Amino acid sequence: MEHYELIVIGAGPAGQKAALQAAKLKRRVAVIEREKVVGGACVSTGTLPSKTLRETVHSLSMLRQRQLIAGRHSTMSQLLERKHLVVKHEIDIIQAQLDRNGVDLIRGQAGFVDPHTLRVRTRDGMTCDYQADFVVIATGSRPSAPPGIDTTHPRILDSDTVLDLEDVPRTLTILGGGVIGCEYACIFAAMGTKVTLIDRRTRLLRFMDGEISDALAYQMRAHDITLKMGEELEGVAVTGDRVETRLKSGKVVPGERLLCAMGRVANIEGLNLPELGVTVAANGLLTVNAQYQTAAHAHIYAVGDVIGFPSLASTSMEQGRLAALHALRGETTKFPSAFPYGVYTIPEISFAGATEEELTQNKVPYEVGRAEYSETARGQILGDHTGILKLCFHRETLQLLGVHIIGESATELIHIGQAVIAHEGKVSYFRDNVFNYPTLAECYKIAALNGLNRL
Amino acid sequence: MEHYELIVIGAGPAGQKAALQAAKLKRRVAVIEREKVVGGACVSTGTLPSKTLRETVHSLSMLRQRQLIAGRHSTMSQLLERKHLVVKHEIDIIQAQLDRNGVDLIRGQAGFVDPHTLRVRTRDGMTCDYQADFVVIATGSRPSAPPGIDTTHPRILDSDTVLDLEDVPRTLTILGGGVIGCEYACIFAAMGTKVTLIDRRTRLLRFMDGEISDALAYQMRAHDITLKMGEELEGVAVTGDRVETRLKSGKVVPGERLLCAMGRVANIEGLNLPELGVTVAANGLLTVNAQYQTAAHAHIYAVGDVIGFPSLASTSMEQGRLAALHALRGETTKFPSAFPYGVYTIPEISFAGATEEELTQNKVPYEVGRAEYSETARGQILGDHTGILKLCFHRETLQLLGVHIIGESATELIHIGQAVIAHEGKVSYFRDNVFNYPTLAECYKIAALNGLNRL
Repeated sequence: MEHYELIVIGAGPAGQKAALQAAKLKRRVAVIEREKVVGGACVSTGTLPSKTLRETVHSLSMLRQRQLIAGRHSTMSQLLERKHLVVKHEIDIIQAQLDRNGVDLIRGQAGFVDPHTLRVRTRDGMTCDYQADFVVIATGSRPSAPPGIDTTHPRILDSDTVLDLEDVPRTLTILGGGVIGCEYACIFAAMGTKVTLIDRRTRLLRFMDGEISDALAYQMRAHDITLKMGEELEGVAVTGDRVETRLKSGKVVPGERLLCAMGRVANIEGLNLPELGVTVAANGLLTVNAQYQTAAHAHIYAVGDVIGFPSLASTSMEQGRLAALHALRGETTKFPSAFPYGVYTIPEISFAGATEEELTQNKVPYEVGRAEYSETARGQILGDHTGILKLCFHRETLQLLGVHIIGESATELIHIGQAVIAHEGKVSYFRDNVFNYPTLAECYKIAALNGLNRL
Repeated sequence: MEHYELIVIGAGPAGQKAALQAAKLKRRVAVIEREKVVGGACVSTGTLPSKTLRETVHSLSMLRQRQLIAGRHSTMSQLLERKHLVVKHEIDIIQAQLDRNGVDLIRGQAGFVDPHTLRVRTRDGMTCDYQADFVVIATGSRPSAPPGIDTTHPRILDSDTVLDLEDVPRTLTILGGGVIGCEYACIFAAMGTKVTLIDRRTRLLRFMDGEISDALAYQMRAHDITLKMGEELEGVAVTGDRVETRLKSGKVVPGERLLCAMGRVANIEGLNLPELGVTVAANGLLTVNAQYQTAAHAHIYAVGDVIGFPSLASTSMEQGRLAALHALRGETTKFPSAFPYGVYTIPEISFAGATEEELTQNKVPYEVGRAEYSETARGQILGDHTGILKLCFHRETLQLLGVHIIGESATELIHIGQAVIAHEGKVSYFRDNVFNYPTLAECYKIAALNGLNRL
């Protein structure tokens, strides 16, 4: 039986980085992948395809807004042409990286036979067993099928099938105001679709700073998205070319298509985890300690979407790397506390560090500094008049505690504030610093001056 | 005679920030401006208009490259429409900011009567004298007229008149491979103009890291710009609708238009500086100490373009602020050593900290980490396959010493590295950090891993 020091199950972002880290340590390592290509949901159906579509749609709508081009693109295939190129390129890169570093790629569905033995079943039914000193479970997640809704119906989509659409629908109903629901609402609205988003909670993306969440709701409505918050779903009915979404409040929302974005479930079936004593939490996720070890077996780790929040490609990659370092070198490193959270809505959002709500709850004496993109020359040049950058800092020590951005390039700009938080820097750094002119980064300086003036 | 604690001459970026800082300290302050509008060359003829045109042209060419739109825009007026809006808005903002903070705006040409008295002559010939405890000279610069070239001829342009062009020329000759020459070469090339750039030096932008300068030359050539380096100018002749530029090597470069970008001269005439004992250096610039004081009079400061390099809007603003703080509060603050330098070529360039050449000269043991934009998913999405991010760090301490970027959003991304340099952080910060996915900022992580692997 083949023996590896580390076997990783799943070749998404978390699994890749775990395997690559092991390879860099010159260990014998394999990745088991059941899909035809490496990359996981991130590359094939999730992050990458949706961000590519977003970029295309957004660039076009910005130029349209500035009246530099006219007209609309109506075919999805035109808009998605670039997606295919980007996805293929990324898969090639990942594949080449695994090959170059000597990571064995085993294709098939993995299941534990015992805590150190994995049986892999290929698509044509062959099986083969492998032994491993350490195992990293990085099997990811998939859209959850909401009870009573037939997501196989061609008019009913989930985040896997939405990109198979051939035409841009005139109307679209979205169930779920989480990251995926909000991102697709913005993308379709920018393509000219009339979008209605329904959520049973009263605010979008609750983990975010309230001011930014409010600003997103405002911006989405300004882009003609209808938000129906605090609504419970009654049922869904397809009649002819319409999907009717009925709410418990009695409202009926009609649409050409329905997109279900009510959460994702971990891919754990077939792994035989119960037989192994690895417990699955009530929410279907695996529970791990700070070093990503399962409680049942210290040599079995789990990283990425299977362990839940934050479930970002970026954080999953780092979890994978840290799990491999811990398994193979006993290194206990801390996950960076100021990791950035990015949401690719239109406008995009990113934050690092504490929200105002967290600071209030923890009774931290803090002050806020705000800047609007429109206060910078770059904001004027780009035509982004709605962007906001907000700094939260300690009233007494001036230490930077949190950065919250909504607007163009938020996911890039956040790393400036994140670097200052990570180095325990102060808000006065931004006041005394020189920023390129014209840039959006100047918002940091404006916000710092604004905040320091309030003291 | 009216008396002010601080009088600033010139309402460009340096002057504005000096005046605003004085106003924030509740001092009586005035700005003297000879032009009709505030903002200086930065807003009216320089940075802002050219960057606005660049953004428009660049966005269109990116989409054209991705085959999302077809055809060309041929009229300058269409491309410049947005410029007028942006410039007007910025002037309004500056004017409102000065008003709101109680800064008096005096219109006219200023000249010293004695070290504490300024005489202002208005456009209609009226004069009025003002007294000041402190004076900040922030009069800026203008394009220098090269000897023997008639820049008033309609076919011969300088950086002030180039934006008055009504049509996009089919061919353009540019004299000067400095920042302005390189920026316009890229802008016109992106509009479809055949550009030839001539410089007597052998490399573009010599103050930059050599690798980045090489990459810029490569990129410019790839965009069909002809570079004629190491060429001395013989003369210029206009015949009919052609401008012929003759070089000492015997070459003759024909073009529809000629743009002279061979440097700028300080605006110091009429100030009566010689009478005051303030010496003007051989290069026409004012010499100041580290606190921006002139040698002749400690209460007379000079900031911005009149004192030369780096002559950026961003650095000038900070010089103005620091001069006011020193004059009015005696604060000796240090100019941030890791200020970023930004060049809005296509692709754009920015750097902070040391170049490889500087580190070599100073015998610092350093290592380099490189990343290409094409290694990131975001680079693929944007279609930027040529961007490069380079980190220079100390081989032993791992301290980050310099960051050099050429590519999309370089002027924004630089601030991440700059923050780490300013906090004396290490290159390992990037390795251990989580970056949003997909972003260009991930290049920092890739470059860090690349560099650390070389040790």
